[in-house]
Amino acid sequence: MEKLYLSYNQIHETVKDISRAILSDGYDFDFMIAIGTGGFIPARMLKTFIDRPIIAVGMAYYDLDNNKMEAPVITQWLDDPINQIKGRKILLVDEVDDTRATIGFCLERLFRHDPAEIAVAVLHDKDKPKSRELPAQVKRYYRGLKMNDQWICYPWDADDIREQDKQSI
Amino acid sequence: MEKLYLSYNQIHETVKDISRAILSDGYDFDFMIAIGTGGFIPARMLKTFIDRPIIAVGMAYYDLDNNKMEAPVITQWLDDPINQIKGRKILLVDEVDDTRATIGFCLERLFRHDPAEIAVAVLHDKDKPKSRELPAQVKRYYRGLKMNDQWICYPWDADDIREQDKQSI
Repeated sequence: MEKLYLSYNQIHETVKDISRAILSDGYDFDFMIAIGTGGFIPARMLKTFIDRPIIAVGMAYYDLDNNKMEAPVITQWLDDPINQIKGRKILLVDEVDDTRATIGFCLERLFRHDPAEIAVAVLHDKDKPKSRELPAQVKRYYRGLKMNDQWICYPWDADDIREQDKQSI
Repeated sequence: MEKLYLSYNQIHETVKDISRAILSDGYDFDFMIAIGTGGFIPARMLKTFIDRPIIAVGMAYYDLDNNKMEAPVITQWLDDPINQIKGRKILLVDEVDDTRATIGFCLERLFRHDPAEIAVAVLHDKDKPKSRELPAQVKRYYRGLKMNDQWICYPWDADDIREQDKQSI
């Protein structure tokens, strides 16, 4: 599969583009929920452009003892979900909408707590079949870039970041 | 005050240095706790070099309604602290050890839950008076760089990341 190498600066600028889309759309959310660990870096960058608190949740295919799981498991959830979610406007942040398994799972859990609204922001949306539709309650979906189904090499996964920079366009 | 501009690549390499120090020290922790929001990016970078789960906590001088507070407030805590902490070896990650108010506050709370060990990792330790000592239980402290008390401009706070890169050494 084709590999796409991205630099931190490219990601930072993609996040800035997303922030402009959110601002021009007028979506005034109360806070972000970053899906860990892929959403941590995009969410923190986004906070620079739209200053809102970040709450983190953890989703992984490995549990805290590093056992491989079949489906996403929650490695961290909100500490007070009813009070944190009910009636709030939220931006759910992740790095990529791939099969949508993780984002879909997370949205389903969050909507149980009766938010006012949840919008989704991802750096990259892969043009491929998704394992589930977005829930009908999701009215706003911000993607930095739509792209073919390719292997995205994020800068935070690089062993040698100078080499990564050279390979990014 | 003197300003120090840092690029993402410099931060990535500082994190790699920290990972080498941890590995050569033989500290085999179960997971990281990232202090949000400053610790999110360093923790996610570190996961590339030492693959452990990340749990996030939130500390801020603003509450979730963006009211300014005098002391650090917890904006997010562990969802199951007793089971998550007791008997575990933890690496607490933040970007900077400045006055140590946030890290000290967080350590004090975490030690209540009887961990096996908590070590601290920060990108930058400022050589200045600290508002508190590290608890005596902290035996391992990993700093990427020790530096004078200066204004550190982190790349994730940059409006224009290309300009930031030019200003970083």
